Amino acid sequence: MPNFDLQATLDRIQPVSAQRLSEIQARIDRQAKPVGSLGRLEEFARRYVAISGREDIRAKRVYTFAGDHGVVAEGVSAFPQEVTPQMVYNFVDGGASINALARHAGAEVLVVDMGVACEFDELPGLLRRKVAKGTANFTRGPAMTGEQALQSLQTGIELAAQAKKEQIDLLGTGDMGIGNTTPSAAIAASFCDLLPAQVTHRGTGIDDETLQRKISAVAAGLMINKPDPSDPLDVLTKVGGFEIGGIAGLVLGCAAEGIPVVIDGFISTAGALLASELHPNVRDYIFAGHQSVEIGHQHMLARIGQQPMLDLGLRLGEGTGGALAMTLLEASLQVLREVLTFAEAGVSAGEDQ
Amino acid sequence: MPNFDLQATLDRIQPVSAQRLSEIQARIDRQAKPVGSLGRLEEFARRYVAISGREDIRAKRVYTFAGDHGVVAEGVSAFPQEVTPQMVYNFVDGGASINALARHAGAEVLVVDMGVACEFDELPGLLRRKVAKGTANFTRGPAMTGEQALQSLQTGIELAAQAKKEQIDLLGTGDMGIGNTTPSAAIAASFCDLLPAQVTHRGTGIDDETLQRKISAVAAGLMINKPDPSDPLDVLTKVGGFEIGGIAGLVLGCAAEGIPVVIDGFISTAGALLASELHPNVRDYIFAGHQSVEIGHQHMLARIGQQPMLDLGLRLGEGTGGALAMTLLEASLQVLREVLTFAEAGVSAGEDQ
Repeated sequence: MPNFDLQATLDRIQPVSAQRLSEIQARIDRQAKPVGSLGRLEEFARRYVAISGREDIRAKRVYTFAGDHGVVAEGVSAFPQEVTPQMVYNFVDGGASINALARHAGAEVLVVDMGVACEFDELPGLLRRKVAKGTANFTRGPAMTGEQALQSLQTGIELAAQAKKEQIDLLGTGDMGIGNTTPSAAIAASFCDLLPAQVTHRGTGIDDETLQRKISAVAAGLMINKPDPSDPLDVLTKVGGFEIGGIAGLVLGCAAEGIPVVIDGFISTAGALLASELHPNVRDYIFAGHQSVEIGHQHMLARIGQQPMLDLGLRLGEGTGGALAMTLLEASLQVLREVLTFAEAGVSAGEDQ
Repeated sequence: MPNFDLQATLDRIQPVSAQRLSEIQARIDRQAKPVGSLGRLEEFARRYVAISGREDIRAKRVYTFAGDHGVVAEGVSAFPQEVTPQMVYNFVDGGASINALARHAGAEVLVVDMGVACEFDELPGLLRRKVAKGTANFTRGPAMTGEQALQSLQTGIELAAQAKKEQIDLLGTGDMGIGNTTPSAAIAASFCDLLPAQVTHRGTGIDDETLQRKISAVAAGLMINKPDPSDPLDVLTKVGGFEIGGIAGLVLGCAAEGIPVVIDGFISTAGALLASELHPNVRDYIFAGHQSVEIGHQHMLARIGQQPMLDLGLRLGEGTGGALAMTLLEASLQVLREVLTFAEAGVSAGEDQ
């Protein structure tokens, strides 16, 4: 593992400037519309500009992090583990849902192999950053070593830095990994102090019997490993996943580099929550793409302190909800840039102006 | 008024084919993702294709209907009536929020003068279809005559037919009219059988005192005119507005022509509700763009039977929420067209496939 200092990254994370936020809102308030009438679009624009110092998006990218999970041995998923690499090939070939939605949003998709349980040849669009071929089964012991947890964080941090160099102004997170709602539920239970049954749900669409096994697996993982929520690295090590660590690192890196990041659903939010627990200012850089169907998702978003941008009953992952939400962020900036003020448009102000 | 038979339009409205809807869903279910995992995106695509017979959108247009309201004499708005024509000029010049959001969505904006209280010269992008220079104050008697109500409906129906000829595949509705949340609240109260205070809200941002006057105005309009909710034309005549009638006509026309229509917020929904009450199958053609902040909005959407696509705290009108929602519809079609099936992608199906 290369030399790496997590603390150096955390030390670079600044709060988003309250003064900049109110300067941008003051400018929005002069535009020819009732004050506040574009609701959350105003928030999106305000926050994006305050974070990035820009009013446009030169380029967007979704990093879809892939990894496998030892806990699938407990029978927690409706799909076999071979689907993880099959979907990686589908992403690289451009045939998956994230590809269609990223094309719609004008975003590039890069797939990051964080820990798929197979070897990949070199492929365009695939970043080979494998930490190991899948995590260990966390119902028997820690999912990974502390070094592996750090390595997965570091990978995400480095990808954010690379994106910054390439003038990518907006990043999205995505995930692929059969079984990965199970570690995400364990992370949600740890940080939100909830019972496994309160945060464990149907993932890709499991039946009642599988759901019971999944809840038991989350409970066993928490009981055997006793992750310490005051130590996010311990949580990642004991009940996390390599792709979840990569997402957490990317979100940390975005906060350090000043890049707004749109997170996807349940798994991405588990990663973003890990990052937020490592440094409280991280949450100001996060745009919560959507509200997932997964019951544990709302609790993690509440702890991060961000409201979802969309609520469309999605439960796919890959980065799909985040890519879709990128278009709302772009719309909010187009309003900021193009709408005339009351004075410019020759419109009489109301009583509240 | 040209010869016009509302019944002929109503007679052309067909239910959306349940068989087509299930054929499209079956195709979606073969795509390489867990069944149903794209939630409402699947609904949007399914319904758009079943209505239009197309899988793409060749062109999109927002009709923003403008009109003035005699009821502003009761002091119900935070803005003076002169803002209606000022904003019409702003729309035509491309400097308003709807212009920015329509450009983002790739939609054209056409402004329809249904009843602004001034004369407009010929302007590109402005359709002069004035019924009268503002409605009468409905706290003293009917807002318009029955002939004017029919004329406003007819105007909207004709615009839908024109769009069909021009191969516009997706329409959006918008409104501009100082005071127009007041007749919209009266329409909501009539059809939803609610009290004025349950459906009357702050519009552009009025204070408590103005809100009380507005509730009183709605109550007076209902008491004096006694609109009959079983006769939607009577409701439009007595407590409606010319731009609301235009929107209702456009929505009816869309249902007759087989054009999916994305409605905006409170005022557009009042128009869409009038159309739905004229013919129950109309609701199948309506995409509810967003949930407005206005408290009466949810009741009208519930009666129409459509869920909002977005919930972003918008309360602007103009067609803004509808334009924004058009991008979600377009995204849903891109997924339908471009995502490979399990077989094509070489991905193993899950237990539910």
